[in-house]
Amino acid sequence: MKKINFNQIPEYIAGKNIEDIKKLYKIKKVIKLASNENPYKLPKSLINTLKKNLREIYRYPDKDYKNLKLKIAEKLNLAPENIIVGNGTDELIDLAFKAKYLLSKNLNVLLFYPSFSLYEILSKIYNANIIKVELNDFEYEVNKIIKKIEKNPVDLISLCNPNNPTGTYVNNTDLFKLVENIKDDTLLLIDEAYYNYATAKDFPDSVELFKHFEKSKNIFITRTFSKIYGIAGLRIGYAFGNKKFIELLNKIRMPFNVNLLAEKAAINLLENDKFVKKCYIKNYKNKIFLYRELDKLNLYYKKSEANFILIRLPIKAQIVFEKLLKKGIIIRTIQDKGMENFIRLTIGKRSEVKKFLKELKRILK
Amino acid sequence: MKKINFNQIPEYIAGKNIEDIKKLYKIKKVIKLASNENPYKLPKSLINTLKKNLREIYRYPDKDYKNLKLKIAEKLNLAPENIIVGNGTDELIDLAFKAKYLLSKNLNVLLFYPSFSLYEILSKIYNANIIKVELNDFEYEVNKIIKKIEKNPVDLISLCNPNNPTGTYVNNTDLFKLVENIKDDTLLLIDEAYYNYATAKDFPDSVELFKHFEKSKNIFITRTFSKIYGIAGLRIGYAFGNKKFIELLNKIRMPFNVNLLAEKAAINLLENDKFVKKCYIKNYKNKIFLYRELDKLNLYYKKSEANFILIRLPIKAQIVFEKLLKKGIIIRTIQDKGMENFIRLTIGKRSEVKKFLKELKRILK
Repeated sequence: MKKINFNQIPEYIAGKNIEDIKKLYKIKKVIKLASNENPYKLPKSLINTLKKNLREIYRYPDKDYKNLKLKIAEKLNLAPENIIVGNGTDELIDLAFKAKYLLSKNLNVLLFYPSFSLYEILSKIYNANIIKVELNDFEYEVNKIIKKIEKNPVDLISLCNPNNPTGTYVNNTDLFKLVENIKDDTLLLIDEAYYNYATAKDFPDSVELFKHFEKSKNIFITRTFSKIYGIAGLRIGYAFGNKKFIELLNKIRMPFNVNLLAEKAAINLLENDKFVKKCYIKNYKNKIFLYRELDKLNLYYKKSEANFILIRLPIKAQIVFEKLLKKGIIIRTIQDKGMENFIRLTIGKRSEVKKFLKELKRILK
Repeated sequence: MKKINFNQIPEYIAGKNIEDIKKLYKIKKVIKLASNENPYKLPKSLINTLKKNLREIYRYPDKDYKNLKLKIAEKLNLAPENIIVGNGTDELIDLAFKAKYLLSKNLNVLLFYPSFSLYEILSKIYNANIIKVELNDFEYEVNKIIKKIEKNPVDLISLCNPNNPTGTYVNNTDLFKLVENIKDDTLLLIDEAYYNYATAKDFPDSVELFKHFEKSKNIFITRTFSKIYGIAGLRIGYAFGNKKFIELLNKIRMPFNVNLLAEKAAINLLENDKFVKKCYIKNYKNKIFLYRELDKLNLYYKKSEANFILIRLPIKAQIVFEKLLKKGIIIRTIQDKGMENFIRLTIGKRSEVKKFLKELKRILK
């Protein structure tokens, strides 16, 4: 058993900080289209709930998060024992990797490229053997994945659906087919951080999928309150899976992993379908608007099921990134090899999207 | 390398939940003296800071927590690179255990009994060999610890100072002596969750200790905002140690481990020495008051440097615990063998302490 080499663990690259950019370039207004945050005004009832609980923060949260788990279970028509909550989805994904690592020691992880960088970081932390599957023109190819599974021992598959940073997805039929071909002791982690934004009719219903395979396969689906629910700063996510696996994760998580205000906020937001619906529609409209404008500019982009778009530029993305920064617009470049010309753009408010397009046109002309 | 047995991981026993007790016994007012929370009214400026930032929670926090780390570094006269912040001290302790586990694989941990149960839970999670050191009449005995170190390979020592649940401590001279006898590659984790409450003149200055041994030993000191700072519900702690070890922990923590409001709150509280001082004095006065009252009742207890007292009762603690629960008073029993007659009582407000004493007298007479 080789020891871990900490130098091999890549750094997580986060979207630039608004305050840092304001200081650096002495700009008053900075637009951030880099971290897929929800830009729309948070509901008053949420703010009021938080205000009402500010004097309660001297207490520890309920370590079992009973009220929130009941609310989620009710929504999904699952048992509370199928649910776990975490300090953002990050923690839940970490816990899943860690559990498999502790159980197997020599961890074999199947990862897709390009995808959310955290999976590779965790694979390196837990000294895993990474089985790489390249997306084909940024699309998942289920037959290719199945072939890889047949040829390699796989303890964990980390599948982002819709995928970050491509916005592409595995459809319902393909996902069922994939699960059928997964070995019973392989953990299939589906990161659904962006599923609320999906508009495709054949986007999978993962609750149904989970129920269908509950007894035969180990499927673990993570979701977040950081995206459409708009509370990235409070750090809260949830996941569902089979009771045995959830119990195991509860054993290795820290007792008070989710803060008290995050639990209250999540409960409030789950009771507010209107807010989510509103953000979903606005995101969709701005996406269509962006498609049209990008078409006019003759830029290649991927159709997206999320709140961001992967766009190919005619010049190096880093140059555009820096020029936009100076104009107070933060976007994201992509670290993967061969993607030097790509950016990932969060679909912000209409005014933000317009500002971005205006500056982009200037840079490209 | 044996695989982990998840059944061996003990459950973390938390203080009972106020809302649960209200429901269960149909009581309106419940006093909680079970989780060493700070019962005093939080400062207005803190509440205002939080209110001001409620509309910002749609943003991710700064993943480097630069502002908070600068503030802590300034306070302790250390570099920001010596500081790490976490989702409560729990996470920081977990990270330290995890780092040592990933580095050594066969982890040897020296633990004290009785002490904070989390260390044993983490040892079981990381499949460690536990070297047990029993306290002597609940006191640390440094010569005994040194003898154990000489005889056993030790990767990590987890030392709670002042100790939970005994309230006892290692003094400055003894702690220097202990560190001198620790091997260079052993990690000494000092959990100082309660150090703000210590009144003993020979209580160690751990910043000084750290600086003295910075180049030769690996000392990692954790502190929390959950106790005297009064924000247990927000989940935030910090730790300091040598730059190399801190860098390593930053590599294995999740990017946004501390929530945005917690960072803002911690910065605000670090600027408010008055609040901490006030709580320190009130705790001290109520401790002295409790000592006197316990003396009158002829009960054995340990002198405490923290905001709780370990008390021996003439009957089984579980019986008293349940009777008090029905009266709306939550205290803590101790899980360790041979401690069936002991309780750990948080030093609450004077009115809470009086209520507890009144009901205890009734039960014991």
